[in-house]
Amino acid sequence: MPATTLTISSKNYSSWSLRGWLMMKLSGVDFEEVVVSPDDVAARAEILLLSPSILVPCLTYDGAKIWDTLAIGEFLNEIAPAAGLLPADRMRRAHCRSICGEIHSGFTSLRSALPMNLKAHFPKFKVWSKAQGDIARVTQLWRECLGAYGGPYLFGQISIADAMYAPVATRFRTYDVPLDDVSQAYCDRILAWPAMQEWIAAAQLEKEEIEELEVEF
Amino acid sequence: MPATTLTISSKNYSSWSLRGWLMMKLSGVDFEEVVVSPDDVAARAEILLLSPSILVPCLTYDGAKIWDTLAIGEFLNEIAPAAGLLPADRMRRAHCRSICGEIHSGFTSLRSALPMNLKAHFPKFKVWSKAQGDIARVTQLWRECLGAYGGPYLFGQISIADAMYAPVATRFRTYDVPLDDVSQAYCDRILAWPAMQEWIAAAQLEKEEIEELEVEF
Repeated sequence: MPATTLTISSKNYSSWSLRGWLMMKLSGVDFEEVVVSPDDVAARAEILLLSPSILVPCLTYDGAKIWDTLAIGEFLNEIAPAAGLLPADRMRRAHCRSICGEIHSGFTSLRSALPMNLKAHFPKFKVWSKAQGDIARVTQLWRECLGAYGGPYLFGQISIADAMYAPVATRFRTYDVPLDDVSQAYCDRILAWPAMQEWIAAAQLEKEEIEELEVEF
Repeated sequence: MPATTLTISSKNYSSWSLRGWLMMKLSGVDFEEVVVSPDDVAARAEILLLSPSILVPCLTYDGAKIWDTLAIGEFLNEIAPAAGLLPADRMRRAHCRSICGEIHSGFTSLRSALPMNLKAHFPKFKVWSKAQGDIARVTQLWRECLGAYGGPYLFGQISIADAMYAPVATRFRTYDVPLDDVSQAYCDRILAWPAMQEWIAAAQLEKEEIEELEVEF
């Protein structure tokens, strides 16, 4: 079988790359990273939300390409079911897919107002009011899940939902967003996840800077 | 068991409602429609792409809510596997999920430049250049699938992918978008699908008008 690869771009800026990469780590499926420079025109357009996210993350498996983050999660769940990427209970699984779908297609204000930028830190950053609505909704979803299933992750055990929301946890830290205690504890837990720590450490070493994502402060 | 319902809003304007409703029809699962008026503030915000799509479509099943379109598709595929909402072959299924995911999170220029509006028809409508890129990408995806799997639907048999792209077929007709022969034949096939005909007929009877979606011509 040809090599299994995951194509990603910037570890500092690309939230889609992070999600796909965390799912690979969760699955335990062995893979090689293929890194596209954020200076690449298409990669840059995706990071800047100017084009659909099709270049990254892209899983190449047995010669076939799977280029959507949720499709990657569903595929990994099928080939590595023991990893529990999706909850075993059917109704919990449906709930998990609902909140994954919501962040997959939504929260556009949050994405554009607080771009992922792991190397940056803006204490007391002023969040634009439309993004406040997204923050309220995200933390409501988190509290509901953590309350319903008892934690420590959104659906009890760690799942694709935690990978989908992980970039949000980094944004809350980067832009110093005040959170309720439950949401703050969840953020801290996600940021302490060893795979996250590995990604963040690699992001710190990146040299490329994307000016449009370096917010004014 | 409590009634199974699908919450939808305008049949004329709400592309997300259409997708969820077509998936229900494909599944064969019996359901009642719950219609939220497009004058409802939250429903209107979703139709205008101002908020994440969480109010519609929403499947209520055995008391639980599943509020994302892809989550609804995956759930229906689990409870009604014989309906074949997802392809039986694993790699074809992964391909199907990739193109479903791409339209779920992308094609924002197409959505805003050519809003779904089943009652309208604009011969020789001038399409904004950014939306042209989306049109080229959609039809490329269609030709690849129809070529790879032989049609008549994207993955051979009808699947959730056809439901996901059905609103695009209506837009191409509403705005008189010139298409290659393969894509045009596929659009015609989707629009002739009895469930689509039923939805379009119901849309014609709607009285409400959303001014912001009545494009200038």
